[in-house]
Amino acid sequence: MKGRKLLMIPGPIEFTPEVLRAMGMATTSHVAPNFIEVFGQALERLRQVFLCPSGQPFVIAGSGTLAMDIAAANLIEPGDNALVVNTGYFSDRFAAILERYGAAVTQVRAPAVGDAPALEEVEAALKEHRPKLMTITHVDTSTAVGADVKGLAALGREYGALVVVDGVCAVAGEEMRQEQWDIDLALTASQKAIGVPPGLALLVAGPRAMDAFRKRKTPVGNYYADWTKWLPIMEGYEARQPRYFGTPPVNLIWALGVSLGQILDEGMDARFARHQRLSKALKAAVTALGLRQVPVAPDKTATTLTAPYYPDGVDRTVLGHIKEAGVILAGGLHPAIKAQYFRIGHMGVVSASDILATVGAIEKGLSQVGYEFEAGVGLAAAQAVLIRQ
Amino acid sequence: MKGRKLLMIPGPIEFTPEVLRAMGMATTSHVAPNFIEVFGQALERLRQVFLCPSGQPFVIAGSGTLAMDIAAANLIEPGDNALVVNTGYFSDRFAAILERYGAAVTQVRAPAVGDAPALEEVEAALKEHRPKLMTITHVDTSTAVGADVKGLAALGREYGALVVVDGVCAVAGEEMRQEQWDIDLALTASQKAIGVPPGLALLVAGPRAMDAFRKRKTPVGNYYADWTKWLPIMEGYEARQPRYFGTPPVNLIWALGVSLGQILDEGMDARFARHQRLSKALKAAVTALGLRQVPVAPDKTATTLTAPYYPDGVDRTVLGHIKEAGVILAGGLHPAIKAQYFRIGHMGVVSASDILATVGAIEKGLSQVGYEFEAGVGLAAAQAVLIRQ
Repeated sequence: MKGRKLLMIPGPIEFTPEVLRAMGMATTSHVAPNFIEVFGQALERLRQVFLCPSGQPFVIAGSGTLAMDIAAANLIEPGDNALVVNTGYFSDRFAAILERYGAAVTQVRAPAVGDAPALEEVEAALKEHRPKLMTITHVDTSTAVGADVKGLAALGREYGALVVVDGVCAVAGEEMRQEQWDIDLALTASQKAIGVPPGLALLVAGPRAMDAFRKRKTPVGNYYADWTKWLPIMEGYEARQPRYFGTPPVNLIWALGVSLGQILDEGMDARFARHQRLSKALKAAVTALGLRQVPVAPDKTATTLTAPYYPDGVDRTVLGHIKEAGVILAGGLHPAIKAQYFRIGHMGVVSASDILATVGAIEKGLSQVGYEFEAGVGLAAAQAVLIRQ
Repeated sequence: MKGRKLLMIPGPIEFTPEVLRAMGMATTSHVAPNFIEVFGQALERLRQVFLCPSGQPFVIAGSGTLAMDIAAANLIEPGDNALVVNTGYFSDRFAAILERYGAAVTQVRAPAVGDAPALEEVEAALKEHRPKLMTITHVDTSTAVGADVKGLAALGREYGALVVVDGVCAVAGEEMRQEQWDIDLALTASQKAIGVPPGLALLVAGPRAMDAFRKRKTPVGNYYADWTKWLPIMEGYEARQPRYFGTPPVNLIWALGVSLGQILDEGMDARFARHQRLSKALKAAVTALGLRQVPVAPDKTATTLTAPYYPDGVDRTVLGHIKEAGVILAGGLHPAIKAQYFRIGHMGVVSASDILATVGAIEKGLSQVGYEFEAGVGLAAAQAVLIRQ
């Protein structure tokens, strides 16, 4: 019996042995030739993973929140209008960050937790406020709500807004084609579908975003986030001519290089398809077990994440039983419904076996807290999807 | 013959096998019981390593520059006076950061590169400007100038300034007794004498600093740096009650816990003494080889770092020969003299053998570029110190 449990939370996720090996390698100088090559290559690969050949990648030590902070600090000047398409906890956070740098923020809120605002409402707000910038949370990690990034980005661009996608729980898992979908900036953190332990903020900024940055009239309000400092570093390493601003997180960047290589070996289209197939299988199992989900409809639901409500009479103690059965899941996060639901992350190297193991453990846990269902009904529903697709 | 070369630069330094093993462990959830315990313990240990029982530790994903940014963003409000005791490149950086958050910065500059300002000059500036905050760069990584932190801190406190020590190339190597020396905030980065791969900003703030933060009239200008967000997290993990703001860099914090444990096993006094002994040995060797150093006098010189000028007729190509002989050193960094000197880092787990290996490689390199000296004279000078002390 393996002692280690399967980690199925919305990040950190399971990492490959090759990525973990890179993490533990003896650290070299940040100007060592092999590190320069890996860092330069990682920047090139980020462009491919974000599907944004014209983008400028940034790899900076910090969390996903730093990535959001970097986007806001560099693109917002005091008094700018910004529009937040609010689908939950992390949209609230983006609004707070934008305000910190002086933006006048308008929020288009979802009608309820688990829902996303209608495109018409977003269009009305764009028309009224003509924001310089609009943010979309691709996947709200707190609720598993998935936004229609393609549709929203097209709308935003139509009204001249810079489109910023918080892809923290999405990039390299959810389908996102940054350049084709006209997204001006997309960002994520390393520990999600990118498949690297936490500690890296990752961004790819398109030409309009870089242009807006270059045309600023005021200095960036945040020193550490300032692209004025980081752009020469990223350009330098990509040209294999290292320059110094802060010491890059050598081991994390090695791990990033390995993981991006593995992602590109699979291919982005195959990767998107795998995430969709596994998500469908898990969601079918959850439904077969009689559990409702936080997202109100399938087209409002993330591919990387599932958020089922506990059934009647069950609370978060079931997570302890599921853990004993071998799988670690996460509790609720959205303040309004925190105690009523749980979260299952399924992104990165996740496989069909992981999905079956997870469903199996959920069934075991539910049975132990006295919830009644036909044993195996969840597994059968998942397997039907896995075999068919 | 071992393929790996000895890394003797001012960070990243050599890390212990135990630290690297922690880096490569399979990442757990940031709310897993074993991670909570390690994070909580790391916070407690930081207090001991900074010798500041009353301090509030912060461990945040980012570089050393982020640590400087956090100090400035939380303690400065627009219009505050700040005083920078300028001993080089990183003092210039601190001045720029303070200005970013609205400080009116006065700088007391060293009379020349390699020197530090006289205490009397600093006192005159304190008397004239009555700054809210004063910064000291303990070790200027660009020049190996070491500041008289104890004397400067006493002066700063006498005039009511919050004393902030940039200890990036110093903490856990140079003697610093934060509480006893009345330092209000000290900061560093993981990849220096703390002995963890790059990616963590580390700070310990004393009661007066936390008080000044709590009494702010304006919000912190930088979202990611804001202690309002981080303080509940640090207090939470230390109470073994995790709370969420951003996903903590799990593997780096595991490695931090291991390294802080190793540091405390040695004991701070023994550690300071070892760094002093090894520094003296290396500096004696450099002098015996006829090389001058950037710092103008022994009492202006760092313990963790040595910065020799190239002798006449020698340039940075000698670093390639030294590397071939097995030891990696760093080139110059200070813009005014960049091409004229090089840098040797000796902190963390550095040993007497490492010092001898380094001197041996320097002698080999110098001989290969035609510099004339008596073979072994550097080694003998180092060994005389190592045997005596």
